[in-house]
Amino acid sequence: MSITPTTPAEVDAIVAAADAASAEWKRSDIPTRVRALDAVADALDAHGPDLIAIAQRETHLAEGRLQGELKRTSFQLRMFGEALADGEWLDARIDHADPAWPMGAPRPDLRRQLEAIGPVVVFAASNFPFAFSVAGGDTASALAAGNAVILKAHRGHPELSRATSDVVVAALASVGAPRGLFATVYGTQSGVQALRAPAVKAAAFTGSVAGGRALFDIASARPEPIPFFGELGSTNPAFVTRSAAAANPVGIARDYVASVTGSAGQLCTKPGVLFVPAESTVVDELRAAELPGAVPLLNTGIEAAFAEASGRTAATSGVELINGGGEDPLAPVLYATETTTLLADMDELMAEMFGPAALVVTYTDEADLVAAASRLEGQLTATLVADEDDAIAAELLPILAEKAGRVLWNQWPTGVSVTWAQQHGGPYPATTAVGTTSVGMAAITRFLRPVAYQNVPDALLPDALKEANPLGIPRRVDGELRRD
Amino acid sequence: MSITPTTPAEVDAIVAAADAASAEWKRSDIPTRVRALDAVADALDAHGPDLIAIAQRETHLAEGRLQGELKRTSFQLRMFGEALADGEWLDARIDHADPAWPMGAPRPDLRRQLEAIGPVVVFAASNFPFAFSVAGGDTASALAAGNAVILKAHRGHPELSRATSDVVVAALASVGAPRGLFATVYGTQSGVQALRAPAVKAAAFTGSVAGGRALFDIASARPEPIPFFGELGSTNPAFVTRSAAAANPVGIARDYVASVTGSAGQLCTKPGVLFVPAESTVVDELRAAELPGAVPLLNTGIEAAFAEASGRTAATSGVELINGGGEDPLAPVLYATETTTLLADMDELMAEMFGPAALVVTYTDEADLVAAASRLEGQLTATLVADEDDAIAAELLPILAEKAGRVLWNQWPTGVSVTWAQQHGGPYPATTAVGTTSVGMAAITRFLRPVAYQNVPDALLPDALKEANPLGIPRRVDGELRRD
Repeated sequence: MSITPTTPAEVDAIVAAADAASAEWKRSDIPTRVRALDAVADALDAHGPDLIAIAQRETHLAEGRLQGELKRTSFQLRMFGEALADGEWLDARIDHADPAWPMGAPRPDLRRQLEAIGPVVVFAASNFPFAFSVAGGDTASALAAGNAVILKAHRGHPELSRATSDVVVAALASVGAPRGLFATVYGTQSGVQALRAPAVKAAAFTGSVAGGRALFDIASARPEPIPFFGELGSTNPAFVTRSAAAANPVGIARDYVASVTGSAGQLCTKPGVLFVPAESTVVDELRAAELPGAVPLLNTGIEAAFAEASGRTAATSGVELINGGGEDPLAPVLYATETTTLLADMDELMAEMFGPAALVVTYTDEADLVAAASRLEGQLTATLVADEDDAIAAELLPILAEKAGRVLWNQWPTGVSVTWAQQHGGPYPATTAVGTTSVGMAAITRFLRPVAYQNVPDALLPDALKEANPLGIPRRVDGELRRD
Repeated sequence: MSITPTTPAEVDAIVAAADAASAEWKRSDIPTRVRALDAVADALDAHGPDLIAIAQRETHLAEGRLQGELKRTSFQLRMFGEALADGEWLDARIDHADPAWPMGAPRPDLRRQLEAIGPVVVFAASNFPFAFSVAGGDTASALAAGNAVILKAHRGHPELSRATSDVVVAALASVGAPRGLFATVYGTQSGVQALRAPAVKAAAFTGSVAGGRALFDIASARPEPIPFFGELGSTNPAFVTRSAAAANPVGIARDYVASVTGSAGQLCTKPGVLFVPAESTVVDELRAAELPGAVPLLNTGIEAAFAEASGRTAATSGVELINGGGEDPLAPVLYATETTTLLADMDELMAEMFGPAALVVTYTDEADLVAAASRLEGQLTATLVADEDDAIAAELLPILAEKAGRVLWNQWPTGVSVTWAQQHGGPYPATTAVGTTSVGMAAITRFLRPVAYQNVPDALLPDALKEANPLGIPRRVDGELRRD
């Protein structure tokens, strides 16, 4: 089905309502916000079977995968509630007045916390119709931080977007949240219009480099530029050392194929390039591996882009097809090449093939791994498959930490856990905002801004900064981290 | 004197050296960094008399002011050392593996910390030749965070920039810091070239809206966009309530004049617009106040811009000159108007006049204060002069917290203390990066980026993330803030 694009007048009304709702929501207390997040989570769970049925039809993703994704989505909403109650996200700091402050002038009473940034536009992703879409991570963290959300639906799952939006709006209404706190717009121009609206104060995006960069440029070119948290793409290279390859070629090949072909390879953390020693049997195992059959991808645009990217790799001189492929352009496929070929054409061969394809790169000299790692573009993840005493792994680790937001050791990068310490984001083009994450509890800081209060009477201070610490949160008081 | 612009080849060499030095400095331990910051601070203090003499000649700022500024500058370097030792800036988080993680899939072992972002270009300011220049706040926090600094000298104090750079370079060498960790470039094109260099990963700026926006646009348009932390300008409105004006008209007028004319009004936090009740005697006091005489401003460009901005205000219909001004275009001057005039032409009349001028706005209806506050552009500061039980003040406070990075109560915004809780930065155009500060210990987060390590052996982890907590820093372990 198709859904009529939101009209310009409707977008204006949605932005105005979000602006008013955001101002009200910013003043809401933590228990109120937790109730709202929990209500949305409960409602998503309750409507799970209906939503998953629509999602299957619109995205072609498997039922089990969608069930897991929905569970993750409601879990994420509830976990932001836990983080809110903890209070450290406020980064509360209190410096009492100090006439003898050694800077050379008396120190005034200064108290600083993080506050809601204002209405946020969230551009939903195609490949996670729940977890990075209507009620996904950016929506959860923006609401938790005290902001209204204007959700730009992805054209790949319009009916699911509308159904999920209805669930979110009803759940928020059921706990008395301000009208207009959450609304969905449809159509590319609606998203751009919202992004340009002066009342909008931040934006988040998950998708392609081309689309994300275009929106980043719009956000940056506004009369008042706003932060744009874009997750654009990543090839997620994995490096297998000699000793690791020798010890477990079967397991490495099996687990790699599973990671590359899960969700038909439509994961932003798919390990799209695998470096293995030329002499190892890992390549033989990969040649012999049984690949899953072709399945429809998320939508026809992604199918066309995948066929083109995969075909470009296939046509590159020095690249060999080692498994899969064939007549069906959507069939999972593994290519192989040598490090010399890769290093000669790294931009092309390291480009993301979004879908069930991967490139195996064989090396004879471990120094080539250092050369390749040093020339990587920014990545969401980079993976080492190694033994603890591999000298090459110890050398690669800090290089990969320069290039990626998450570095893995003997695990595969797909399946991004929602935790306190998770990091999903890395240097450009992995993301447009290298200092932030879109997954995990640190994501809330995207949608906050610091405000200091100087010499303000206690009764007028925000609760987090009142002398008696009525919220009972951790605070830095006169430079010391305290819980009282 | 003039200093020859750095040549393109020299800039290339400086960037390459900074890139190598940054990679090495990132791996330095905290005590090493503290020694370097302390060495620079000690050297600045030791060379104080010489540096201040040059600064007086080049900037026309008074000796006492420059002495205070230099003291603040070395204090700031040392305080970042204290913050480093504390370790909370690393935002260390550890989630142990949990097979029963309720998200629906096992949680892997995930450990996340903040790491140095890479070489930083710092554009020095004209009005703080020490504290926001060669060895100023951005340099201190970038070095503390583990990054190399390429300093673009301000053309207003080239000789001081060179002398201070020599002091910094020698101090860093004396403690064995990497060669090229800090270097200064001269000339507009040199700064732009460095900003465009692929190896540069962040930039900071303090100056005009026009200059800062142009550089922000360059940073955002790079093939790899980088964060640009620009502090561009602010009018810093102050609101005096009826009861406060009635209680202390003499003190308010005296302290306001002192705040407006200190450093000849060349402070980014100068309270350039003062709202007072029409019936109060504050305006009479301001008319009668003794203003300081005209002094040369920082440089001829600033003198011309001040004369033009002040002249534009003077020529606005409905604006009256109430004190000062006259023949000398650099003489301190106070203008007055009514809220109706201001609200009719707010963009023009709220524009920053960088120098010793201010606009007094008289109101008869307190509701006009809410109207004016609601329409403010982003500000570094906003000030309330009020009694604790003023209803209007309680109404204005949250509005001002929307518009400004720091809200003051019965104090004046000039004199920005360096503390843990300070916030210097606000919504655009006050800054281009609303989520950050350029003053205070939170400034270090500008130059850091998060990296997560998944399932990495303890021996290969950064010290902050090793199980035994060898640095003894606060960490969030399995969601709980701990010190052990």
